[in-house]
Amino acid sequence: MSAPSSTSTPLAGTALDRPAPKGLDAIFRPRSVAVIGASRRPGSIGAAIFKNLLEHGFDGPVYPVNPQARVVQSVLAYPTVADIPADVDLAVIAVPSKQVLAAVEECGKKGVRGVVVITAGFKETGAEGQERERALVEATRRYGMRMIGPNCLGVLNTESNVCLDATFAPAWPPPGNVAFSSQSGALGLAILETAGALGMGISHFASVGNKADVSGNDLLEYWEQDPGTTTILLYLESFGNPRRFTQIARRVARTKPIVAVKSGRTKSGARAASSHTGSLAGADNAVDALCRQSGVIRTDTIEELFDVAMILANQPLPKGARIGIVTNAGGPAIMASDACESHGLELGTLSDATTAALKSYLPPEASVKNPVDMIASATPESFEKTVRLVLTDPGVDAVLAIYVPPIVTTPLQVATAIVKGAEAASAELAARGESPKPVLTCFMGAHGVPEGLRSLQKHHIPSYPFPESAAIALARVVRYARWRNEPEVVERVFDDMDLGSARAVVQGARARATNGETVWLSPDETRALLGAAGIPLVPTVTARTADEAAEAASQLRFPVAVKLASTTLTHKTEVGGVVLDLESPEEVRDAFRGIERRLDEKGLRAQMDGVTLQPMVKDGVEAIVGMSHDPSFGPVLMFGLGGVYVELLRDVTFRVTPVTDRDVSEMVRAVRGSRLLEGWRGSAPADTTALEEVIARLSQLVGAVPEIAELDLNPLKVLPVGQGCMAVDARIGVRA
Amino acid sequence: MSAPSSTSTPLAGTALDRPAPKGLDAIFRPRSVAVIGASRRPGSIGAAIFKNLLEHGFDGPVYPVNPQARVVQSVLAYPTVADIPADVDLAVIAVPSKQVLAAVEECGKKGVRGVVVITAGFKETGAEGQERERALVEATRRYGMRMIGPNCLGVLNTESNVCLDATFAPAWPPPGNVAFSSQSGALGLAILETAGALGMGISHFASVGNKADVSGNDLLEYWEQDPGTTTILLYLESFGNPRRFTQIARRVARTKPIVAVKSGRTKSGARAASSHTGSLAGADNAVDALCRQSGVIRTDTIEELFDVAMILANQPLPKGARIGIVTNAGGPAIMASDACESHGLELGTLSDATTAALKSYLPPEASVKNPVDMIASATPESFEKTVRLVLTDPGVDAVLAIYVPPIVTTPLQVATAIVKGAEAASAELAARGESPKPVLTCFMGAHGVPEGLRSLQKHHIPSYPFPESAAIALARVVRYARWRNEPEVVERVFDDMDLGSARAVVQGARARATNGETVWLSPDETRALLGAAGIPLVPTVTARTADEAAEAASQLRFPVAVKLASTTLTHKTEVGGVVLDLESPEEVRDAFRGIERRLDEKGLRAQMDGVTLQPMVKDGVEAIVGMSHDPSFGPVLMFGLGGVYVELLRDVTFRVTPVTDRDVSEMVRAVRGSRLLEGWRGSAPADTTALEEVIARLSQLVGAVPEIAELDLNPLKVLPVGQGCMAVDARIGVRA
Repeated sequence: MSAPSSTSTPLAGTALDRPAPKGLDAIFRPRSVAVIGASRRPGSIGAAIFKNLLEHGFDGPVYPVNPQARVVQSVLAYPTVADIPADVDLAVIAVPSKQVLAAVEECGKKGVRGVVVITAGFKETGAEGQERERALVEATRRYGMRMIGPNCLGVLNTESNVCLDATFAPAWPPPGNVAFSSQSGALGLAILETAGALGMGISHFASVGNKADVSGNDLLEYWEQDPGTTTILLYLESFGNPRRFTQIARRVARTKPIVAVKSGRTKSGARAASSHTGSLAGADNAVDALCRQSGVIRTDTIEELFDVAMILANQPLPKGARIGIVTNAGGPAIMASDACESHGLELGTLSDATTAALKSYLPPEASVKNPVDMIASATPESFEKTVRLVLTDPGVDAVLAIYVPPIVTTPLQVATAIVKGAEAASAELAARGESPKPVLTCFMGAHGVPEGLRSLQKHHIPSYPFPESAAIALARVVRYARWRNEPEVVERVFDDMDLGSARAVVQGARARATNGETVWLSPDETRALLGAAGIPLVPTVTARTADEAAEAASQLRFPVAVKLASTTLTHKTEVGGVVLDLESPEEVRDAFRGIERRLDEKGLRAQMDGVTLQPMVKDGVEAIVGMSHDPSFGPVLMFGLGGVYVELLRDVTFRVTPVTDRDVSEMVRAVRGSRLLEGWRGSAPADTTALEEVIARLSQLVGAVPEIAELDLNPLKVLPVGQGCMAVDARIGVRA
Repeated sequence: MSAPSSTSTPLAGTALDRPAPKGLDAIFRPRSVAVIGASRRPGSIGAAIFKNLLEHGFDGPVYPVNPQARVVQSVLAYPTVADIPADVDLAVIAVPSKQVLAAVEECGKKGVRGVVVITAGFKETGAEGQERERALVEATRRYGMRMIGPNCLGVLNTESNVCLDATFAPAWPPPGNVAFSSQSGALGLAILETAGALGMGISHFASVGNKADVSGNDLLEYWEQDPGTTTILLYLESFGNPRRFTQIARRVARTKPIVAVKSGRTKSGARAASSHTGSLAGADNAVDALCRQSGVIRTDTIEELFDVAMILANQPLPKGARIGIVTNAGGPAIMASDACESHGLELGTLSDATTAALKSYLPPEASVKNPVDMIASATPESFEKTVRLVLTDPGVDAVLAIYVPPIVTTPLQVATAIVKGAEAASAELAARGESPKPVLTCFMGAHGVPEGLRSLQKHHIPSYPFPESAAIALARVVRYARWRNEPEVVERVFDDMDLGSARAVVQGARARATNGETVWLSPDETRALLGAAGIPLVPTVTARTADEAAEAASQLRFPVAVKLASTTLTHKTEVGGVVLDLESPEEVRDAFRGIERRLDEKGLRAQMDGVTLQPMVKDGVEAIVGMSHDPSFGPVLMFGLGGVYVELLRDVTFRVTPVTDRDVSEMVRAVRGSRLLEGWRGSAPADTTALEEVIARLSQLVGAVPEIAELDLNPLKVLPVGQGCMAVDARIGVRA
């Protein structure tokens, strides 16, 4: 183990162009540690960190730094880090916020490679703290040091040849293969303790605090390379760089599952977040989209995060969704079956051989179909045999064994039996050349259960106090396994797009900007921009007078629609600016005058630039495809079916850009009303291929021309198969 | 306490006409108990029950009955119950299933008032067992005894002057005010243990087994009268008599909250249920409707059941949905805020006085808005003061205090502080003449938390390991409190309904029945039946030939619709039997011939009775109102918006009958698309008053004429306000 040389690595100013994380070994695998602010005062943070480092057997010297003390906890102390007579890899800093910068400068001069700044009082406290944090980052970059924090709980590595506990948490979790990054120190504490109680082994833990240098993305890439880590858990309050997160997570999740809880989902949550550790609450739809697109398992609660992690950390991934339930009590089996079905799992059908074998030793009152209810008299031997039989049945992808302690057996006996049954099944599957299958258990009640649980934990079999949580967690893992088994997909690129022209249109419009307000494209600009992107728009002609309009209409196919043209009035319907289904030049003339009159009445006439005319598109399914720009996620695409589906039922789906072909294909099928596209009540199936192409083109367009702030194709008519799509109206806003 | 005289009470054969439960005191409050099958063999059920009765200090003699033993657990045993030289109120029977009937007969002769039959091997095992169970019920009724079971875990009463543990469960829960009925013995075991672990006090517990005599409904009525019970929990697998459950629960829930988990929700669950303790899985929509209509809090899982019960059993009901969050850590507060908002709670706004007071002692880094984040340095005193301030703030209806153990305080100190703060707030609110408000806590992590929890439990303050479960549970309680605060409503009765004619139509149709199949009403019968019920149907004329049709059409307003008339072909559209929008007699004639031709091609011409003609109803919002007959719930009403909303989006809602005005009003607003009825995009608001009347009339009709098996008003056009509703088509099936 050697501290890598990160000094020669130029660290760019923004996270976006930062290279893969270097220097993190200095933080997670240092050869020596200094604790700056190691305190003699019991109960202080500085004392707790130093005590933790000594107590958990860090494999290297730990130097207390304290100008006021000769000795800290019986170890010789040094007034400054410069006084330490040997190399220091990592410094943990717990001095008051105003002294942190000086301490970091000293570390830099000493050649320290990594710092963990526990101290709070930086960006999270306002302008002055923000400036202090900026100076801190500047100093660490100048010396080529990596930094965790400030404002954090610390870091921890349980590897037996490291045993680094650089936190002030009272808990030291069991060693294992799960890495955990927490954006909240408080939750970090709770997380370490819960991991201990569940017997879930942790490899590394980091409380990232303000993420001034090392980000969650850096940790993802670091753990991607770490052979001791197989599962990654994240507690997130904000994404520093969501686009990079998507890229990294999409790659990492192919080999190591990532489970995340992202808080700040709702309005109130977001409000609370804005007053917490430098966090910026992201739009929840975008977060959901981002997780879905990158294979990240998002859970709603910390509890569910652990439920899922226990499977991933301990058991193989299931091949499919067919669960087998083995129980000694009917009620809990019903609860589990319910939870399985409502979360997308199925009850597997047992083979005749299995049911015959079960019949041979189970009492006649038992149910030998799935769920297999061995009834209350079930012996440990029945549990062992039944778990083995059901797990090796070709109709089952995973087993949940449920046990309610009756008086005839003890939980420990049954736990031991389940372990034996699972091991026998694994051996049998291996002999057949088949992959292993996951086993979960549910031990209900409290009486004597803890002993049984410890035995299960030792053998890496997860156990849950209630059957539903097991089923829900397994369902999430099944969905992840399915994602991982699908072929990797790449973004589609349309080389016929004229991005030069698209940019020119947008720049032209931006020239009109005043007061930094969004500029709305004119009908001609809209047509030009969409044309450059290869997105079809219904033929449109413009006219400035009633006579021009009547004349222009004759060149189109009747019936036509007449719509107000205005660069300032964007909601045309609301001002009476849209008249549909006009059958003759006369009707068009009247419609023009009607619009004029209605605007007159509202005193808006001056904002009328004329009208646009389009043939009516009667065929096809009405859809809406749009894009809005999220401050942290960048362009977010939306798809929904038109009219009431979007506006009333909110039946829409989102994806962050760039989108892959798979994303687009899923998007079109993700709305509840998507069956309308397949042909509904005799109507022709819609051209979803063309619809998908429009979305993919839009993704490429907004990626290439980031000044586009908002875009709606509404309605977009999806014509019958083979006939393509046609935007009937479009509204495009560009950033000033 | 006296054993009531239930012998003189005639017990009718069906649950429906069974009077309010008598004789249950003999089971829950006996003066003496015999254990028939009390065994010397350790580990046997008979031994466990006898031991439990002695160990938990039952306040009366317990007699072991065992023909093979002189002494059981150092108590003199009797060969039969007849040999006991004193009165016996309750007999607990744990002998093999074939000996149970004889034991019950002996009990009857001895004058025993109640029996609890633990033994399994009855209805749940097939025909022979079913017969055994019938004989058992017959015997108990003959002697006027009440019976719990068979096939159960037993019953328990913790009242200090009773202390009855007639179960074989190892756990004895703390005494309290929560009564629990479980249809699964195994879950009952787990429930008793969980109650103990959570410190949730239990008054009575009953494992109802096969419910051969005492039903869940009986227990509800018994606990309604029990002064020691304030909250009732139910684990249900089936409803014996759902209509009676609705009536009883609706009344009981007005004063004592009922929380229920009903398993067997989904297809698999239902499959498991059908092979379990005599259970009949109900249609889940009906169960949801039934709970909603009767104020029962339905939870998805046992865990959530406890989460909710902890509030109900320990805290006052909240007056509103505005929650205040007090925390020493930002992350968990964000999680809690998220959960609150997504479950219908709001974050209350604190008064200026409260924020000023908070500022006076909290550090500047703290957030003094809701959620109040006192940051990690929060002392127990801050918790005490802040809980008091926020709880007494007029903008807050309930408080959730969240604590993550930092190193500066211990959980016990903070728990004590929260208790003090809550007590001070209660005193203050009482002094102001205001009602008390609920306080919940979340203590995260494990280190030292159990001590704190015990202190909170002692003071009746619920605590949760994760903030989300607290928020979700509170949201359910808020919803219940709102239900309870609404005025009681009664079923609306329309006295203009001609139920005699309605019955005559139905009886006439039933005369056509063959092979027990559902009989479909003819157009004339349909019109007569709906007319008798006062449900408007669009004018319809019938015609047997093309010329008759053309002639008949001229009497209606064009355009008209022509539809196949057939008592056998019910899906008219599918056979090409519907032609719409006909503008002239000629078009009508062509349409008639077209229908004939299409039926010819399919060889169905013989089933054509002619056609019906109706004017087209173009206005109004298309809806569907229907009724289907659930085998256990009786008539279930459905409402949805027409076409894709029902068929594609499944946007429908159900209620069991009879419905109250409030039920109907909620129903119309419960579908996602209900805003369409309020007038959407300039269309006139629909006549929801008339729509509600149609549903209420339908409820009364199907209640009065139970032979109606299925009914669809589809489409039902809801016309603009003041213009009523109009069924355009109706399909009515009656039981053979």
